[in-house]
Amino acid sequence: MTDFSATRALFDLPPDLIYLDGNSLGPLPKAAPARMEQAMREEWGAMLIGGWNKAGWMEQPRALGDRIGRLIGAEPGHTVVGDTLSIKVFQALAACVEMRPDRRVILSDTGNFPSDLYMAEGLIRMLGGRHELRLVDPEAVEDAITEELAAILITEVDYRTGRRHDMPRLTAKAHAVGALTIWDLAHSAGALPVEVGRGGADFACGCTYKYLNAGPGAPAFIYVAPRHAGRAVPALSGWLGHRAPFAFEPSYRAGDGIDRMRVGTPPVLALAALDAALDVWDTVDMATLRQESLRLTDRFIAGVEAACPELEVVTPREHDRRGSQVSFRHPEGYAAMQALIARGVVGDFRAPDIMRFGVTPLFIDEADIDRAITIIGAVMNERLYDAPLYRTRSAVT
Amino acid sequence: MTDFSATRALFDLPPDLIYLDGNSLGPLPKAAPARMEQAMREEWGAMLIGGWNKAGWMEQPRALGDRIGRLIGAEPGHTVVGDTLSIKVFQALAACVEMRPDRRVILSDTGNFPSDLYMAEGLIRMLGGRHELRLVDPEAVEDAITEELAAILITEVDYRTGRRHDMPRLTAKAHAVGALTIWDLAHSAGALPVEVGRGGADFACGCTYKYLNAGPGAPAFIYVAPRHAGRAVPALSGWLGHRAPFAFEPSYRAGDGIDRMRVGTPPVLALAALDAALDVWDTVDMATLRQESLRLTDRFIAGVEAACPELEVVTPREHDRRGSQVSFRHPEGYAAMQALIARGVVGDFRAPDIMRFGVTPLFIDEADIDRAITIIGAVMNERLYDAPLYRTRSAVT
Repeated sequence: MTDFSATRALFDLPPDLIYLDGNSLGPLPKAAPARMEQAMREEWGAMLIGGWNKAGWMEQPRALGDRIGRLIGAEPGHTVVGDTLSIKVFQALAACVEMRPDRRVILSDTGNFPSDLYMAEGLIRMLGGRHELRLVDPEAVEDAITEELAAILITEVDYRTGRRHDMPRLTAKAHAVGALTIWDLAHSAGALPVEVGRGGADFACGCTYKYLNAGPGAPAFIYVAPRHAGRAVPALSGWLGHRAPFAFEPSYRAGDGIDRMRVGTPPVLALAALDAALDVWDTVDMATLRQESLRLTDRFIAGVEAACPELEVVTPREHDRRGSQVSFRHPEGYAAMQALIARGVVGDFRAPDIMRFGVTPLFIDEADIDRAITIIGAVMNERLYDAPLYRTRSAVT
Repeated sequence: MTDFSATRALFDLPPDLIYLDGNSLGPLPKAAPARMEQAMREEWGAMLIGGWNKAGWMEQPRALGDRIGRLIGAEPGHTVVGDTLSIKVFQALAACVEMRPDRRVILSDTGNFPSDLYMAEGLIRMLGGRHELRLVDPEAVEDAITEELAAILITEVDYRTGRRHDMPRLTAKAHAVGALTIWDLAHSAGALPVEVGRGGADFACGCTYKYLNAGPGAPAFIYVAPRHAGRAVPALSGWLGHRAPFAFEPSYRAGDGIDRMRVGTPPVLALAALDAALDVWDTVDMATLRQESLRLTDRFIAGVEAACPELEVVTPREHDRRGSQVSFRHPEGYAAMQALIARGVVGDFRAPDIMRFGVTPLFIDEADIDRAITIIGAVMNERLYDAPLYRTRSAVT
């Protein structure tokens, strides 16, 4: 069991703010600045180059990977941290394509996060344009899984709608036709229990700055199923994926298992923040988290619907078909979200008309949900968003 | 002019340590922990998702890129920070190969840092194995520049020997035969004045954790010459290299100029440390730095040679043929370096027999050099390294 009033106390949140955007950028864990200062002063400052050995910097990508691995149901020793999610998607895709040399199609859906699609486009270009990135509607993915496919590249939880794909089902279908699976867990890791191991995922990757709360631009992670760990060829064959990085050999030899998915020097300072963020997660039971997330999102959906019928719920209502965010559609969504933010309810907007709210039990409770509903009701019903101030678009929306 | 006693005061160095390893990992700038705490508490903690706009996180990779750009002679607006050096080398290589579709050879030398070679190997593999990575001895590079080449991939200053290639000369020769140039500045940026613009470099990249002192695993940078900025196709086409990242378009459109070399979400916390590290550099005149570096390295070479004739100098003596490190060869190099470290003289060892010392005027002065010479003399002449303790290899050497 997890005591969520205890986890809430572990975050530094501005007073009077209802932060429903932890699905975009998680808040600051209270312990993170001290952990960072320790990494800077006691490790970097005092140990200097010796930190690679004395502070264990070199091993952190795997150690932290395993702590994330617990949250996503990965077998120990098969998850590693580094780079950005786009880079990790690229590595997974390139490995899949190489493992299915006679197949030419990568399947994804129109709800996938664009960077995943861009990386696939770029890879296909590099491979000579002989492959096809086939995009179908999210609801059509299952039927589109055919023997043409090298791999499916699917984000489990849709960044706009919060709709959740059925990982075990799609994975089983992909395997039945001989295709591999890549699961992007950007909106899953820390949002709900994931079972990459039991679910049969071949590759999975995600970021750590959303539900995992490791800070803006925190590094990504990648999981490779044990059965592929020694076979998946690393596309970005950097020295830290080499079997013996410090032998400085002239030719690349892939490292053991997940190590080969490492590329360059680990981002030690960013890993210190991730370390502190994962300390919070080490106290969390994922089943309890899910229960609380569903209780709060049910309450939020019902409350907002009752308060403002003009907001169309686009997130599926069925529990097993959604993640931990709730999205609504409204033609004035952009201005409405600005008006909400001005009143201390922070969600975000995704073009063309989606208002997104992340519900994160680690620091959001029932009182927050109820207060958010009241404020959303007032902003929508009294058209408080109808002011030029709220219509000015900022650079990053 | 630069006052190096003033810059020295800007670093937090352990007392009684002569740190001659700033060419591997620079020391902690005193201002960095406070800058980091500000980024964590005042930006991430207080602004949360609003930090992307309010704190300008999204623009930092270019702003910091330009501050590095001054140190390497780049035209403003053509350097960007992100990822690791291996990733940036990959991007530069992929762009070159695409710009020279009728050419099949990438030239590098056996003194290059292995990760650069590994990334080239991996790229060639992905491109179908039709290209060749041709390795020649460093001294043979110039003669090996022929019309077969798509690009030369050269690290300006050799990580083991400190030997420096002649960038303008090799670049001119490459251009004369229609080849492009990629300069790895890992051991150049912050070590000596570099002129990528006037020198004609097509692409350049480097890391920020060595001479630039931005911390362990700090992000890399890449420069693309203005004449290629709008034509170089980005190999790793992530969303932040897109022309309109927040339009979430289904297909990739390369961003303007250097922006297209961005891949994923910027590492904001790591950038805060880099920002503080570059504050020191903003006070430094590169010509003065070089003058002082040469004065100190000359003194170091002469002193060590006089004190211990058995240490063979492998760094070229001519000023224009070396960077800011001095390397010696000795069969007992590993143990000798451990013995030196135990006595407060920190350099490092590179297999099979190289003892490396970085001479970094920002925080190393004449008194340090003289004391280091005395200790090196004692360790070598009295064979103080001849103890089992010093022969045990650590994981990271």
